Amino acid sequence: MFQGMAQMSRDVAIIGVGMSKFGELWDKNLRDITLEAGMYAIFDSGVRGADIDAVCIGNMSAGRFTGQEHLGALAADMGGLGHIPAYSVEAACASGGAAVRQAYMAIKSGEHDVMLVLGCEKMSDVNQSQAMYTVSVASDWEWEGMFGATFPALYAFIARRHMLEYGTTEEQLAMVAVKNHKNAVENPWAQFRRALPLEVVMNSGLIADPIRVLHASPVSDGAAGLVLCSADRAKEFTDTPVYIEASAQASDTLALHDREDITRMDAAVISAREALKQAGVSIKDIDVFELHDSFTISEIVLTEDVGIVEKGQGGKAVEEGLTEIDGKFPVNTSGGLKARGHPIGATGVAQIVELVLQLRGDAEKRQVDGAEKGMAVNIGGTGATSIVHILGR
Amino acid sequence: MFQGMAQMSRDVAIIGVGMSKFGELWDKNLRDITLEAGMYAIFDSGVRGADIDAVCIGNMSAGRFTGQEHLGALAADMGGLGHIPAYSVEAACASGGAAVRQAYMAIKSGEHDVMLVLGCEKMSDVNQSQAMYTVSVASDWEWEGMFGATFPALYAFIARRHMLEYGTTEEQLAMVAVKNHKNAVENPWAQFRRALPLEVVMNSGLIADPIRVLHASPVSDGAAGLVLCSADRAKEFTDTPVYIEASAQASDTLALHDREDITRMDAAVISAREALKQAGVSIKDIDVFELHDSFTISEIVLTEDVGIVEKGQGGKAVEEGLTEIDGKFPVNTSGGLKARGHPIGATGVAQIVELVLQLRGDAEKRQVDGAEKGMAVNIGGTGATSIVHILGR
Repeated sequence: MFQGMAQMSRDVAIIGVGMSKFGELWDKNLRDITLEAGMYAIFDSGVRGADIDAVCIGNMSAGRFTGQEHLGALAADMGGLGHIPAYSVEAACASGGAAVRQAYMAIKSGEHDVMLVLGCEKMSDVNQSQAMYTVSVASDWEWEGMFGATFPALYAFIARRHMLEYGTTEEQLAMVAVKNHKNAVENPWAQFRRALPLEVVMNSGLIADPIRVLHASPVSDGAAGLVLCSADRAKEFTDTPVYIEASAQASDTLALHDREDITRMDAAVISAREALKQAGVSIKDIDVFELHDSFTISEIVLTEDVGIVEKGQGGKAVEEGLTEIDGKFPVNTSGGLKARGHPIGATGVAQIVELVLQLRGDAEKRQVDGAEKGMAVNIGGTGATSIVHILGR
Repeated sequence: MFQGMAQMSRDVAIIGVGMSKFGELWDKNLRDITLEAGMYAIFDSGVRGADIDAVCIGNMSAGRFTGQEHLGALAADMGGLGHIPAYSVEAACASGGAAVRQAYMAIKSGEHDVMLVLGCEKMSDVNQSQAMYTVSVASDWEWEGMFGATFPALYAFIARRHMLEYGTTEEQLAMVAVKNHKNAVENPWAQFRRALPLEVVMNSGLIADPIRVLHASPVSDGAAGLVLCSADRAKEFTDTPVYIEASAQASDTLALHDREDITRMDAAVISAREALKQAGVSIKDIDVFELHDSFTISEIVLTEDVGIVEKGQGGKAVEEGLTEIDGKFPVNTSGGLKARGHPIGATGVAQIVELVLQLRGDAEKRQVDGAEKGMAVNIGGTGATSIVHILGR
């Protein structure tokens, strides 16, 4: 990434956040939930619709799930936002983070001043097996998906290898789900607001050994929204802006079998390191994390890859309570993908919504005391894309 | 759009172009053609793979056409480009133009210095009626596509109304196809390199009165690539940089029936006006145009909407030869969507490839003498998205 022209860029603030409820929303369609999240974000920000210069949407597969692409124009149209530029960004399950990053760059470039960022997915309009098939578009279709290697199967390889190399246990995999469900109880937008006892997770159905159904994020509908603004104008609209202190992205091989070490997500290692460098902080300075727990093993791997603990210690981290809300490194206070839900394109945006609430002190019973900096890690596929944002108040 | 911070931004140059052949490419898959276009663009630019900071891909519906999304990571992986940021942009048939615009903003922002921009679509792996159904994701699915209003049907409304209001004739609709096929004969990448006599177009099958099959762009496979670079570094790599002098985008209602006047594409009017303002030129200063002729009526409408002729005079413009290669305002020297082909996500990038060749003087037998400035207009749906770029040498 190009580093040498800081004098030309400007800072970017987040001045509004909004969410739809996440869940199986049978009575709503994609445009309803997207509009809902966007409107809440706009109301929260204090801007008027006419202040918005452009819309950027993160979405993976509305075409396959609902028959509708061209979501940018759809959102500008449904939102009554007029003739402003509008477009979608796709990077598989990291589509939401990619949308945040594109808007961040658009504002930095001086092309736009105030932007609405949306993330959305409506997955429940197809049945569960179709949903699993549709999600396989994020894997290497010709070398993985086509041969039946669904995401639970691919993450099962990662989990088994992690257990073999580092002694990670089935209990530790389950404890991630227990923690994230506990956190989600206090999140009004979460899909599953109920605590899960460890033995329920441990005894849930095995879907791809060692991955059980309660290790996996669900099929979800939902949308999340942000209003981004050039930092120099943020105080016009709000007294509590949150700043994007770093935005970094990296790639890896699309297919899992091409990686040197499948227990590590190199794209996450690289993008987290780059983000910390941009923000000029160390991992110890981060007060709250949203890490992409598409499966419970993903949270364990990412806890290691961003540097919270050494490689191989991610299982112990959750077991010892390090990643609890009152632990040293709180992870997924929102409930994460596991319990808040994982409407694919919405996830990366929802992670940022949670961090903004935490940094504003608005996270109510799931508040991390005195949180000043937060990190979101949004992953695509089995780690072929990683997008990391660091926010500060 | 935000106008006041020019001191913070920097200029962007195009230093390399590449294309795959457009057509029904039965022996190649999506990754083959995308890689081919990207590699040609890299070779043409003089950069090494290691110089490339990020990849941005324009694609509409690879998920539906081929079962593969996550094309950013795929391209970085297949291209051997390493762990660089990579993502897709979608704005229906304007996805290619949207990718160019996102890369332009990323370079302006200072985040990236040298970027590979790709556009691609592989449409022939599904049959023709499935292709038509898939393309409907770009319309308002719940109000148009679902009820059988395919794109030929929607453009038929536009054509009929234009004929009623302005006296545009069936001959004039056909003449656009005749001109663009004639131009494509000299374009080695074009899908249809054969001239069509007027009577063949006039007598081709009626698919949605007054639109005949030879008024419509085909189902195509293909990819196009560009290497973009900050202008201050362009001369390191090439002696013939072409500069992006303007990039503008606008939206309109997704559904045709919500528009005040369906003979006009407001998004094109607004984005073309904005682009001319950014470049500080008038329409008379533009030497060569690529206008989005998804149907022949589209070229006629856009000839008016960008200001080449007055409203209602687009049919006459083609009849009088104004838009021929040796006319005053040459339009679609490449053959356009009609004859070069329309692999959806590739189209907006391919338009820019053609303009770069024209401005370099490398367009061979289809060269517009002394071309110094070019304009590309890339449309999504029936005009819900319009993206306009002005290039200069």
